[in-house]
Amino acid sequence: MMLLDSFNSLELGHELHEFAARLYPIARSITGNGIRETLALIGQRIPLQIVEVPTGTTVFDWTVPKEWNIHDAYIKDPLGNRVVDFQRCNLHVMSYSTPVHATMSLAELRPHLLSLPENPDWIPYRTSYYKENWGFCLSHKQMLRMEDVEYEVCVDSTLKDGHLTYGEYYIRGRSTDEVLISCHACHPSLANDNLSGIAVATFLARLLSTQDLRYSYRFLFIPGTIGAITWLAQNRENLRHIRHGLVLTGIGDAGGFNYKKSRQGDAEIDGAVAHVLGHYGGAAEVLQFSPYGYDERQYCSPGFNLPVGCLMRSVWGKFPEYHTSADNLDFIKPEKLSESLLVCITILNVLENNQRYINLYPYCEPHLGKRNLYRSTGGEAIGPEINARLWVLNLSDGDHSLLNIAERSGIPFVLIRDAANILSEAGLLSVCYGDAGAERRLPYSPGPAPKPPLSAEQLAAETSHHTKVR
Amino acid sequence: MMLLDSFNSLELGHELHEFAARLYPIARSITGNGIRETLALIGQRIPLQIVEVPTGTTVFDWTVPKEWNIHDAYIKDPLGNRVVDFQRCNLHVMSYSTPVHATMSLAELRPHLLSLPENPDWIPYRTSYYKENWGFCLSHKQMLRMEDVEYEVCVDSTLKDGHLTYGEYYIRGRSTDEVLISCHACHPSLANDNLSGIAVATFLARLLSTQDLRYSYRFLFIPGTIGAITWLAQNRENLRHIRHGLVLTGIGDAGGFNYKKSRQGDAEIDGAVAHVLGHYGGAAEVLQFSPYGYDERQYCSPGFNLPVGCLMRSVWGKFPEYHTSADNLDFIKPEKLSESLLVCITILNVLENNQRYINLYPYCEPHLGKRNLYRSTGGEAIGPEINARLWVLNLSDGDHSLLNIAERSGIPFVLIRDAANILSEAGLLSVCYGDAGAERRLPYSPGPAPKPPLSAEQLAAETSHHTKVR
Amino acid sequence: MMLLDSFNSLELGHELHEFAARLYPIARSITGNGIRETLALIGQRIPLQIVEVPTGTTVFDWTVPKEWNIHDAYIKDPLGNRVVDFQRCNLHVMSYSTPVHATMSLAELRPHLLSLPENPDWIPYRTSYYKENWGFCLSHKQMLRMEDVEYEVCVDSTLKDGHLTYGEYYIRGRSTDEVLISCHACHPSLANDNLSGIAVATFLARLLSTQDLRYSYRFLFIPGTIGAITWLAQNRENLRHIRHGLVLTGIGDAGGFNYKKSRQGDAEIDGAVAHVLGHYGGAAEVLQFSPYGYDERQYCSPGFNLPVGCLMRSVWGKFPEYHTSADNLDFIKPEKLSESLLVCITILNVLENNQRYINLYPYCEPHLGKRNLYRSTGGEAIGPEINARLWVLNLSDGDHSLLNIAERSGIPFVLIRDAANILSEAGLLSVCYGDAGAERRLPYSPGPAPKPPLSAEQLAAETSHHTKVR
Repeated sequence: MMLLDSFNSLELGHELHEFAARLYPIARSITGNGIRETLALIGQRIPLQIVEVPTGTTVFDWTVPKEWNIHDAYIKDPLGNRVVDFQRCNLHVMSYSTPVHATMSLAELRPHLLSLPENPDWIPYRTSYYKENWGFCLSHKQMLRMEDVEYEVCVDSTLKDGHLTYGEYYIRGRSTDEVLISCHACHPSLANDNLSGIAVATFLARLLSTQDLRYSYRFLFIPGTIGAITWLAQNRENLRHIRHGLVLTGIGDAGGFNYKKSRQGDAEIDGAVAHVLGHYGGAAEVLQFSPYGYDERQYCSPGFNLPVGCLMRSVWGKFPEYHTSADNLDFIKPEKLSESLLVCITILNVLENNQRYINLYPYCEPHLGKRNLYRSTGGEAIGPEINARLWVLNLSDGDHSLLNIAERSGIPFVLIRDAANILSEAGLLSVCYGDAGAERRLPYSPGPAPKPPLSAEQLAAETSHHTKVR
Repeated sequence: MMLLDSFNSLELGHELHEFAARLYPIARSITGNGIRETLALIGQRIPLQIVEVPTGTTVFDWTVPKEWNIHDAYIKDPLGNRVVDFQRCNLHVMSYSTPVHATMSLAELRPHLLSLPENPDWIPYRTSYYKENWGFCLSHKQMLRMEDVEYEVCVDSTLKDGHLTYGEYYIRGRSTDEVLISCHACHPSLANDNLSGIAVATFLARLLSTQDLRYSYRFLFIPGTIGAITWLAQNRENLRHIRHGLVLTGIGDAGGFNYKKSRQGDAEIDGAVAHVLGHYGGAAEVLQFSPYGYDERQYCSPGFNLPVGCLMRSVWGKFPEYHTSADNLDFIKPEKLSESLLVCITILNVLENNQRYINLYPYCEPHLGKRNLYRSTGGEAIGPEINARLWVLNLSDGDHSLLNIAERSGIPFVLIRDAANILSEAGLLSVCYGDAGAERRLPYSPGPAPKPPLSAEQLAAETSHHTKVR
Repeated sequence: MMLLDSFNSLELGHELHEFAARLYPIARSITGNGIRETLALIGQRIPLQIVEVPTGTTVFDWTVPKEWNIHDAYIKDPLGNRVVDFQRCNLHVMSYSTPVHATMSLAELRPHLLSLPENPDWIPYRTSYYKENWGFCLSHKQMLRMEDVEYEVCVDSTLKDGHLTYGEYYIRGRSTDEVLISCHACHPSLANDNLSGIAVATFLARLLSTQDLRYSYRFLFIPGTIGAITWLAQNRENLRHIRHGLVLTGIGDAGGFNYKKSRQGDAEIDGAVAHVLGHYGGAAEVLQFSPYGYDERQYCSPGFNLPVGCLMRSVWGKFPEYHTSADNLDFIKPEKLSESLLVCITILNVLENNQRYINLYPYCEPHLGKRNLYRSTGGEAIGPEINARLWVLNLSDGDHSLLNIAERSGIPFVLIRDAANILSEAGLLSVCYGDAGAERRLPYSPGPAPKPPLSAEQLAAETSHHTKVR
C-alpha cells in the first residue's frame, strides 16, 4: 500500500511540468529520432527497455512504416525570409512530409497549406502517415498574409526503411497478473495530448518501482495506433496476464477528470476509477466506451477486449486547443499534473487492495465491544470507522470485494480497506484466495520485485516526501 | 432494402386520405356486408384473400356470432320527421341492434338512447355484440331536445346465421419467417380508429409486394377481437413463423407517435420501433405493454405471447374524439398518414436489415486507410461515417446485431447499416448466419417472391416515386 | 384474509396509546425485572411464552450478561436535596450502572455525568452494558447549574448472575412457513423507540390470533441485540421456516413511513412493503439495507441473511428526540399508531394472498362477457375491476405472483387479488401450487391453528370493529 500522507503536490507538480518542458521541443513522430530522444529522457528516470521493430514488419492488418526523420523545413519568400520555419515550431511541418525542395507559386503551394480558420492564431497539428504527401501547417492569419509570389519550399526529411521504436518498463510484483499503463509518445510539441501522459506515467512508474506490489506493472511509451498494434502483435501470448489497464493522456489541463470505460464496461478498473473519481472531490465524469479515441481502441478491439480504460481530463476533440499549437506548456498546470498522479496512485491503491474477505463470525454480529472495536457508551451514534466495520462484516460473504462494499455503502475505499485490516488483525476476517488474487496464482512468491536502479539520494527523496512502504 | 429518397409524402398523403374517405361511409360491423364491401375495396389495391367463417364455429373460448346486416333505422316524431336517421350517420344505430319496429313513448324509448353529456355535439359509437339489444346513439343536445311524445322506432336489421369475414394477404419473402401486420376493419364511420390503419396497411402491403424481401409478410384486415381470435384459432399451427408483428391503428391524427410494446417487452420489434421513433425527429413515446387495447390483446395473450406491438398516434380512450362522430375525415390528416407510412417502412427496413456480423479482423483495428475507408489527413476529427464504421467493427463480435450497435452508439440504424455494407464489401465483415436470420432457415431459397398483379402503370408509378428496389 | 372495512382507527389508536402509556414508567433494561414486568403486561393481551436464559450462556460470539436491577439512584446536594433523582425519570441512570454510594466533589463526579449540549432541556438515554461503569444522565441546563460542592452519589443497583428474559408468541397457520415479527423491549421511558413497536406488535398478534392464516406467525419481544442474538442461537435449527420478517420499531411518531429493506434487497417482504407504502396514500420511503440499525442487523447477518426488513416512521438517529427524554408519550400519536397497525395488516394481507395463478384459458382472452365479467355495452371505457381482470389473466402464466402483477400494472394489490378471486370462482384461473406456497408443504393441513385464549367479549369486540374472518 502506497501511503500518500506526505505527498508534496506542489513540488511534485513542478517536477512533472519541468519534465514535460524538457520533452516539449523534440520533433517527435511515430518513428525516427524524435521518439528515440524522448525515450532516452524517460530512460534517465526509469530503466526503460527500448525496442526497435524493422520497417516492413507485418503487425496484424498493418505494416510497420518507413522511418521518418526531419532536419529542417521552411517556406522562403523572394527576399529569402523564412515565412514558415520548422526551426521555430515543429508543428509547421505535417508529420511524415516527404522531401521537397522547389520554387512554386502560391497557387501551387496552397493545396499543401493547412490552417484553422476558426482559431486564426493557432497552428494545427496534422499528419499523413499512410499516404505519401507533404504539407505545411500555419496560423490562418499567416496564411491570409501570404502574397501571390514565388516561394522557395523545402522539406529536408528522409522517409526510408528503418525502425519503429517504443519503450517498455516492467515492474515485477508478487503476481504475474499485471496492470498495463500505456501512453502515446509520438506527438511533437503538444503538451497535454502527449507530454502530460508521458510525465505522469514516468513518475508513476518510478514511484511504483520502490513498492512491494501485489500486481506486476507494465508501462508502455509508444507511438499512437501503430505502436499499440505493433506491441500487441509482438506480445500476443502474454496478454492473458493483463488484468487491468489504463491509457493515460491529456491529464495536465485545468479541466475536470473524464474516464472512458473499457469496452467491457463493468471491468474492475472501470469500477475502481469510477469510485476514486466519485470521492476525490472535484469534477469528474465517467463516459461509456466508444471505439474512437486513443490506444484503448486497439486494446479494446473485439479480438482482445482487454479491461483497459482511458483516463483524461479534457476529452480529445472537445477542447479547442486540441491538436493545435495552443496545447502548449501554458495549457498544462503543475498542480493538475500532480493531482492526476495522485488520482492514478489512488486508483492503483484500490486495485492493489481490492480483495474479498470472509467474515469468520457470520452468525449475528461478532462482539466488537469486547475487542475494543466499538464505542463504549451505548445510546450514542457510532462513528464512521465503526460503520465501515459493520459494512465489511456484513458483506464479507465471499461474494463482495472491498470495492463492492465501498460502492454499496457509499464509503470511500480507503476507510473500507482500513476496516478490513483492523478486522483481519482482530481475527474476524480472512482474505478470500478463491478469486483472481495475485497470491493464489503465485504460491511460491519470489518476494518483492527487484528494485530499479534509482540512486540512493533519489530513493531517499522519493520515499520521504512522496510515499512510504507499508 | 426499400429506398425512401424520392418518397413523395404530400402526394401519398392525399392518396391515403382519399382511400380512407372512400371507406368512410360504409356501415361496417364485426360481420356482414359492411366489412365485405370494405375488403373488396382493399382487394382492388392488393390481392386480398377473403375468408368466410360460419356462425357457430368455436374459436377457443368464443363462438363466431350471427351475421348482422342493417338496411335502415330511424326514430320518427308524430309528424313523420326522422329525428334520428341511420341514413345520415351510421353511428346512430348501436352496432348489432336487433330488429324493432314499434311506437313508444319517450319514457319507453329512453333506455335505448345513448349520448355523451360531456361532448354534447357528438354522437357516440356503441356496440352490443354479445348481448341481444337495440339502441340509438345521438348527440346529447339532440337527446335533450326530444319531446315527450310518441315515436315510431325502427331498426331494419337482420341477425341470423351467416359468416364472419376477414381479409388476408401473404407476401412471400426469402424466408418463411414472417412479419404480421394486423388492423381491425369493423368500425363504421370512424376515421382514425379504423380507417387510418386500414389505409396505411394497404399501401404498405402494396409497397412491400414490389420488393425483394428477407421476411415474408402477412397482412390481416379483421374484425376486432373476434376476428383476431378466429384467425388465431384457425392458424394455430403456423404461428411459430411469426417473428415480429405490429398492430396498426389510430395513426392518422395530428398527435405524436405512441408505441405500445409487446408483452415480451424486449422483442426485436420493440427495439426496432423504439429506435426509429427515437430518431425520426418528432414527438414519440414508448409505452409498456398492458392487456387492454387492440388486437395485440389476443396476439399477446399468455398462451401465444407473440412479439407483436401496437403503433398508434393518439392512444385509444385518451383523446375526446375517440369512439365518437368527431373521429371523422377531418380528424385525420394526409401528411400524418404518409408520415405514419414512412415510419412503418423505416421500422421494416430495420427488421429487414438487422443482422449480426463478425469482424474478420478482430485483433486491433483493421487498416482502414489503405482501403480508402478513413480520412487521409491525420490530426483532424473523423466524420460520422467513419465513426459508424469503427462502431460496427468494434461490436461485430457475433453478439451484437446492427440494431444493438445503433442503440449503443446512438447512431441512426441507417448509418450503421451503410457502414456494415461498406465494411462487408471491403471484406472486413461477414454476416453471421448463426442466429434467426431468414437465410439460415431457407438454404434453398426459391428466390424473390412472386409479384402481385399490379398493373404496369401502377408498378412504374410506385417504383419511381415511392420506392426503389436495391 | 383480514377485512379492514370496519377498522375503527380512532378508538384503536387510543387503545394503542394507552398500552404504551401503561408500559412507559417501567425501568426496562436488557435484563432484569423491568423487562419481566413489561412482558407480563403484554402477556395479559396475548398468550406470551416467557423464556429465561441464564447469565453466562454462550450465544455465538457473545455471552449472556449478568442481570441488572435497579431500585433507586440519586445525586444529593449538601442540603440533602435530590438534584438528580431516578424516581422522577428512569433515564437519569445510565443503564447497567454498577452500584455506588459515595460522597464526592463535582470534579470527581463530572466524568460520570452525561448531557446533550445541543438539546439542553432533554435528558439523554445512555447505556454501558459491556463495560462496567456507572453514570447519570441529565439535562445540559441542569448540568450547568450544578455548583462546585460535595455531592452524595448513590446508585442502588445490583449486577449479578441471573437471567436474560424474552417473550415469544407463536401463532400456528396452515403452513409451518412463518413470518417473524420482532421488536425490542429493553428501553426504559422511551415511547417511540420501543413502546410504539411493542404496542403495535401486541395488537397485531392479538388480531392475527383470531384469523385463519396461511402462514404461521412468530412474535418476539426481546432485548435489543443480545436478545436477538440469544434467540437466534437458541433457534438456529428452526430458522429455515422463516419466509418473511419485519422488525417493528419507531412507528408512533408523526413522520412518514420508512422501510429499510432486507439485506437480500429483493425479498418478497421488500416488495410487499414497498407496494403497500406506495399505495397507502401518505409519505413513505424505501431505504436500502445498511448494517447498522435495529435487530435486522442480526437477522440479516451474512450467515443467516434472513428476509427481514425494518418498518419505521422516523429513522433512528435522524430525529432529535431519538434516545432522549423528548421521546415521550406526547411524541407518539394515537392516530399514527393505529395507521401503523393498519399498514402492518395490509402488508400481511399481501403476504397471505400473494400466490401465483395459471390462466386456464391462455389462448386469446377468455370470453368474459358471457360470464358477466365484462361491461355489456361495447365502445365505452372499461372500469378498473375489468382492467384488473385483464391484467391477472394476461400475466397468470405461472411466473408472476399477484404482487408482481400489482406492481407491473400499478394497480393496488387488493384489486388484483379481488380479480383473481372472481376469475378463480369463474373457473378461469387455478392457483399454482408449484412455488413456496404454504399448501404445498402441508398436504395434510391440520386445519386452522388453535385460537388463543381471548375472552368471549374481547373476541366479539375484535371481530366486530377491527376485522372479519373471510
